[in-house]
Amino acid sequence: MKKINFGVIGAGRIGKVHVATLVQKIVNAEVIIVADLDEESAKELCEQFEIPAHSNNYKDVINHPDVDAVVICSPTATHAQYLIEAAKAGKHVFCEKPLDLTIEKIQEAIQVVEENGVKLMVGFNRRFDPNFSRIHKMVSEGKVGEPHILKITSRDPAPPPAQYVAGSGGMFLDMTMHDFDMARYIADSEVVEVYAKTAVLVDPAIGEAGDIDTAIVTLTFENGAIGVIDNSRKAVYGYDQRVEIFGSKGMVNADNNYPDNHVFYSDSGVHKSLPLNFFMDRYLDAFAIEMSAFCDSVLYDKETPVGGKDGLMSVAIALAAKISGKENRPVKISEILG
Amino acid sequence: MKKINFGVIGAGRIGKVHVATLVQKIVNAEVIIVADLDEESAKELCEQFEIPAHSNNYKDVINHPDVDAVVICSPTATHAQYLIEAAKAGKHVFCEKPLDLTIEKIQEAIQVVEENGVKLMVGFNRRFDPNFSRIHKMVSEGKVGEPHILKITSRDPAPPPAQYVAGSGGMFLDMTMHDFDMARYIADSEVVEVYAKTAVLVDPAIGEAGDIDTAIVTLTFENGAIGVIDNSRKAVYGYDQRVEIFGSKGMVNADNNYPDNHVFYSDSGVHKSLPLNFFMDRYLDAFAIEMSAFCDSVLYDKETPVGGKDGLMSVAIALAAKISGKENRPVKISEILG
Amino acid sequence: MKKINFGVIGAGRIGKVHVATLVQKIVNAEVIIVADLDEESAKELCEQFEIPAHSNNYKDVINHPDVDAVVICSPTATHAQYLIEAAKAGKHVFCEKPLDLTIEKIQEAIQVVEENGVKLMVGFNRRFDPNFSRIHKMVSEGKVGEPHILKITSRDPAPPPAQYVAGSGGMFLDMTMHDFDMARYIADSEVVEVYAKTAVLVDPAIGEAGDIDTAIVTLTFENGAIGVIDNSRKAVYGYDQRVEIFGSKGMVNADNNYPDNHVFYSDSGVHKSLPLNFFMDRYLDAFAIEMSAFCDSVLYDKETPVGGKDGLMSVAIALAAKISGKENRPVKISEILG
Amino acid sequence: MKKINFGVIGAGRIGKVHVATLVQKIVNAEVIIVADLDEESAKELCEQFEIPAHSNNYKDVINHPDVDAVVICSPTATHAQYLIEAAKAGKHVFCEKPLDLTIEKIQEAIQVVEENGVKLMVGFNRRFDPNFSRIHKMVSEGKVGEPHILKITSRDPAPPPAQYVAGSGGMFLDMTMHDFDMARYIADSEVVEVYAKTAVLVDPAIGEAGDIDTAIVTLTFENGAIGVIDNSRKAVYGYDQRVEIFGSKGMVNADNNYPDNHVFYSDSGVHKSLPLNFFMDRYLDAFAIEMSAFCDSVLYDKETPVGGKDGLMSVAIALAAKISGKENRPVKISEILG
Repeated sequence: MKKINFGVIGAGRIGKVHVATLVQKIVNAEVIIVADLDEESAKELCEQFEIPAHSNNYKDVINHPDVDAVVICSPTATHAQYLIEAAKAGKHVFCEKPLDLTIEKIQEAIQVVEENGVKLMVGFNRRFDPNFSRIHKMVSEGKVGEPHILKITSRDPAPPPAQYVAGSGGMFLDMTMHDFDMARYIADSEVVEVYAKTAVLVDPAIGEAGDIDTAIVTLTFENGAIGVIDNSRKAVYGYDQRVEIFGSKGMVNADNNYPDNHVFYSDSGVHKSLPLNFFMDRYLDAFAIEMSAFCDSVLYDKETPVGGKDGLMSVAIALAAKISGKENRPVKISEILG
Repeated sequence: MKKINFGVIGAGRIGKVHVATLVQKIVNAEVIIVADLDEESAKELCEQFEIPAHSNNYKDVINHPDVDAVVICSPTATHAQYLIEAAKAGKHVFCEKPLDLTIEKIQEAIQVVEENGVKLMVGFNRRFDPNFSRIHKMVSEGKVGEPHILKITSRDPAPPPAQYVAGSGGMFLDMTMHDFDMARYIADSEVVEVYAKTAVLVDPAIGEAGDIDTAIVTLTFENGAIGVIDNSRKAVYGYDQRVEIFGSKGMVNADNNYPDNHVFYSDSGVHKSLPLNFFMDRYLDAFAIEMSAFCDSVLYDKETPVGGKDGLMSVAIALAAKISGKENRPVKISEILG
Repeated sequence: MKKINFGVIGAGRIGKVHVATLVQKIVNAEVIIVADLDEESAKELCEQFEIPAHSNNYKDVINHPDVDAVVICSPTATHAQYLIEAAKAGKHVFCEKPLDLTIEKIQEAIQVVEENGVKLMVGFNRRFDPNFSRIHKMVSEGKVGEPHILKITSRDPAPPPAQYVAGSGGMFLDMTMHDFDMARYIADSEVVEVYAKTAVLVDPAIGEAGDIDTAIVTLTFENGAIGVIDNSRKAVYGYDQRVEIFGSKGMVNADNNYPDNHVFYSDSGVHKSLPLNFFMDRYLDAFAIEMSAFCDSVLYDKETPVGGKDGLMSVAIALAAKISGKENRPVKISEILG
Repeated sequence: MKKINFGVIGAGRIGKVHVATLVQKIVNAEVIIVADLDEESAKELCEQFEIPAHSNNYKDVINHPDVDAVVICSPTATHAQYLIEAAKAGKHVFCEKPLDLTIEKIQEAIQVVEENGVKLMVGFNRRFDPNFSRIHKMVSEGKVGEPHILKITSRDPAPPPAQYVAGSGGMFLDMTMHDFDMARYIADSEVVEVYAKTAVLVDPAIGEAGDIDTAIVTLTFENGAIGVIDNSRKAVYGYDQRVEIFGSKGMVNADNNYPDNHVFYSDSGVHKSLPLNFFMDRYLDAFAIEMSAFCDSVLYDKETPVGGKDGLMSVAIALAAKISGKENRPVKISEILG
C-alpha cells in the first residue's frame, strides 16, 4: 500500500487534531516528525502517538527527506512563509487558514505552489461537515434550482480574550472568514461585493481593542444571488452554526448538531439538549473527512477540494468586510484584489 | 352588554375577513353597514352575514349616526382620506396598512386623529400571530436579555401580477412593510438606518416594471441591535414567515405553521407537509385576535396596540429601503422623516 | 339554499361546542331548539346564539315538527333511548359516544335507525383531526403498504373526579374507547382480540373506586396487523395524543399540537411550549369538520363517516379490554359480540 | 500508566469493532493477541492494528500469561464455555450477548465468575448510546418521577437470512433481547411478567422456519410500571430505535440518529434524511464508551455497568416472551427462572 509520510509544524490544539486523525483514522498516512517552537509539546504529542521524531525547528520538517507532505498548524503569521518554503522543497502542503492576512503574501505563496507543482489544501474544515457538504451537493445537483438567497448563522459560544483579539486581524479575518468560505462553497459562486453592519454588543473591551463582536454582512454573488451572514462572538446556548440556501426550486437548510436527541416533557415545557458547544465536537467528523480528502489528492494526484484561490478569496472578502464596516458602505471585492 | 356598532368600507378579500370576524367571533361587535364602490359585493356580504345596510358610498358609513367605529379596507390610495374624514366625524378607526405611501399624508392623518380624540389602529395582523406575539412577550420579559441580532424571513408563495406591481409602490411598500413593522415589534426599538440589497431573480417582468422581487435588508436599531430581513416574491414550497431574535441571554425563534404535523418515513426519506400556503390560513387566528384587541381598545378606552406611529414608521422604513436599494448605500430614517 | 333545522338535547360542555359550530361555521345549518333538564343552561345558550326556542324536555326537540336532525349531547345513559325515539320520529341523529354501555342496547338502537331510514352519526371527533385524517388517508392510499404495527398514545392531562369514575363505566369505556375507534379508523381493519395490562399508578382512589388509570392494550386486527394503545389518566405536561402506523412500505406518525411553535435557546437548554392541554383546544377544528360532515351526509343523502357499527365496535372492544384487564388474559371480540 | 493487556477471541464483525476501539481509542488498553478458528481473519486484523500475536485456538488467548482481560466475540454457543474457562484462568471477561440460550448454563457461568473474583461485563452496547444513557440518567435522577409507562420501538432495516433465523434461537433471543435489556435499564426495575403478541408479516419463510418477524410485547415491572416493545424485522426506512418513558413528573423520549440534519423544502413537501441504517453507524460511539467503561472497571476495581445478572435476565425475559407468543398468554419470569 502506498503511504504518505507527514511532517507536522505546530503541536497546538489544531496540530493535535490533525496528528490524531492522521495516525488513527487514515490508513495510508504516517506521521514521522512533529516540530514546535515549544519542543516539549511536540515531544508529548510524539510520545502519545508513537511518532519517531520531534524538533523545535520547522525546517527539520520541511527538509526531512522522507516527508511527502507538510501540515502547517503554526500561528497565522508564519503560514505563508512555511508554505512557500515547503513548496520550494517539493512538499505537498496542508495549511491552516488563513494563508495570510495580506493579499500580496497569499498571491505570492500561491504562485510558488504552482511553480513547484505541489498540492495545496487550505484547512476550511467546515466544508467537510456532513450537513454542509450535503447542502453543497444538493445545490450542485440543482435541487434548489437557481440560488437566490443564502443565509449563514455563525455564532461562537464565547469571545476570545482581549489580547487575542488584538493580534487576530479582527473578527472578520479570524471568525467570519470561515463563513465567507462557506458562502462561496454553498452558493457555488464568487462574492463580488460586501456590506458589513458591525456592532460591539458583547464586550466593550473588544471595541476598545479596535474590533467588533457582532455583525450582519450582506454578500452579492457573481451569479446574481445575494446572501447574508450574521455573527456574534457570544451565544450563551453554545456554538451556533446554521446554513440555508433558497432558490427557484426550493430551499435547503441545516440546523446545529446536538450531543443527544432526548426530549423532556415536564409541566414547565418541552426541553432538549443544547447544541454541541465546542468546534472540536461539532466538527470532529469534518476534520477526519477533510484530512482524508487531502490524502486522496496527494495519493491519486487529484485537485485538492480547497485550493489556493479559496484561501485567497476568503481573506479578500474579510478585508472588504472590514473596510465596509468601518466606512459603512458597500465594498467591491475588486477594490481589494486590485 | 356594551356593544360597538361597526361600519365597514371595502367588501374585498380583507373586508370579508374582518366582517366575518366581527360577526362570528366578537360578542360585543355588530356590523350595521358595509360600503363598496361595487355595491353588489357589499350586498352579498351583507346577505351572508345578515347585516342590515349596504351602500356604494363610503360616506354613508362614515356619516351613519349609529356607527361607532369604521373599518377601512378600501384601496391604499383612499386610506388616509377616509381615515381623516372618519376621525373628523368622531368615529374610531381600524385602518388597513399602509396608511398611505407618503409621509406627509400619514402625518396629517395622525394629527387629525389626535385632534379628534378617536382611536386609530393599523392592521398589522402579524403582530397577533401566536408565534410572534409569544416571541415579542419573551423579549419584553427580558428572556433573551439585551437584543443583539434580529432575523426575519418573509417569502411569498407567488409574485403578484405585473400590473399590480406597478401600482403597489414596490415590494418594500407592499410586502416588506409587514416585516419592517414586525422588526420594530420584536426588537422593541426604532429602526434608525436601512441598507437594502435588491435583485430581480424571480421574474424579469417585475424588473421591467421598475420593481424588485428579492432582497436582503439590514436594519440598525436605536438600542444598538442590528437586524436583517430576507425577502422573495416566490417560494415554491409556500408561504415562509419566520422570526428569530438573539440576545445576551439567549435566542428565541419561530418556524412556519403547517396544516398538519404528520411525518412519513419511506425508503426515500422522511417527509412532512408543506407550510400553510396562504396568508389567510396562516394568519387566521391573528385576524381574530387583532380585531378583538381593537374592540377592547374602543370599549375600555385603552391605547390601541398598533397606533399611528406604527403606521408611519413602517412606511418611512420602506421608503428608506427603496432609496437604499436604488442607490446601493445605507439610508438613515431621519433622511426620510425630515 | 337548502337548510337543515337542528334540535339539540343537552346544553353542557359538548352541547355548547356543537351549537357554536352549527350557528357560526355551518352556513346551511340552523339551530331552532335546545333542551336541557336544567332549562337555565338551555336558555343561556339560546340567548347567546339567538336560538328561538328552549325546553327542559328532550321530547320537545324530538317532536318539534321543523326539526330535521337531532344532536344528542345528554348523559350516556340516555343516548340510546333518545336515539331510538328520534329515529322513530324520523329525525336524523348525531349522537355523542358511547351509544350505550351495553351491546344489546346499541344493537337495538342501530336496528331502529335502519328501520326508519334516518342517518346516524356517532361523535368520534378525533377522526376529523387534520393529523389523524391525513394518516388515515395515507394508509388508505397504500402509502405505508400493508399495515403491520399500529401505535396510539393517549394520555389525559388530569384524572376525572372519583365520583365521575364510578359512573363512567371505567377508563376503557370512558377514555380508551376513543382510541379503540381511532385504532379501527387508522388500521382500516376490525379488531378481533384484545389483551389489556392495567394498573393504578396515578391515584389510589381510582383503584378503590374499582377502576384503573394506566394501561397498555394490545390489539390484533382482522388483517393480521397488531397494535398497541398506551393510556394514562395523568400526563403532567398536558394532553398527549399521538398515532403511528408502520407497514411494509413505510411509517407515518403524528405528534401533538402546540399553541405556538417558538423555540427558546437559553444557557440551560432548548425549550418549547407544552402541547395544547385541553381537548377543546386540541380538537377545535375537528369538531367543526365533524359536524360539517354530518350536515353533508344529511343534505346529500350520503353515508355518515362514523356510523352505528363504529359506535358498536368501540364499546365491544372496550368491554373486551375490561375483562382482559381483570382476568389477565387475551379476550376475543367474538366473546363479547356473541 | 497502568495498562490492560487484552486478548480477543473472534475476529468477525464485532471482534473487529472491539479491537479497533481498544487500539485507537483507549489509551491504557493494549491488544496483544487475537484468536479465530479462521486464523486468516485473526492475522489480517492483527496486521491492520499491529498486534503481535494471533492463533486459531481460543485457549492461546485464555492461557496467555500476559493477558489481563479477554473479549469474547465468538459464536453464541461458545460464550459460556469460554467465559468459564477464562474466569477460571483468572482473566477479566467482556462477553458478547447472549451469555447463552439456556438459564442453567448462564447461572453456572455467573457462579464461576463469582468464585474466581474476576470482572464480567456483557456487551449490551445500546446502554452506552448517548440518547439512551441520558434518559437512564434522567430517570435515575427522578426527572420523570415514578415510572409508569415505558415504550421501546426496535425495528431492523432488513430480516436476517432464513438459515440464520433457524440457529438464532428466534427473534426474541436474537433481536428483542437488546430491548429487554434496555427496558430493565431504562425502567430501572426488574421485569416480572411478559405477554407477547407475535406475527409473521415480513417474510413467510421466517414463519416456515418456526420464527416470527413482528411483535408487540407487554412487560410488567416489579415497581408496578408497565411497558411495551414493538418489533419488526424490516423497516424500509432503516434502523428504527426509539425509547420513551413516562412517569408521574413527566416524559422523556429519544428519536433515531440521522447522518445529517438537512431539511429540504420543495414544492412537493418537506424532506429529511433517513435515519442511520446500520447498527455500527448508529452505535459507533456506544461501542467506544462501552469498552472504555469495561476498562475502567478493570483498572479501578469497580463493578461493571452490565453484569452477569443483566446477561441472565435478558435471556429469561426472551424465553418467557417466546412461550407467551406461542401459547398466547402472559408468562411470569419466575416460571422461567424456577
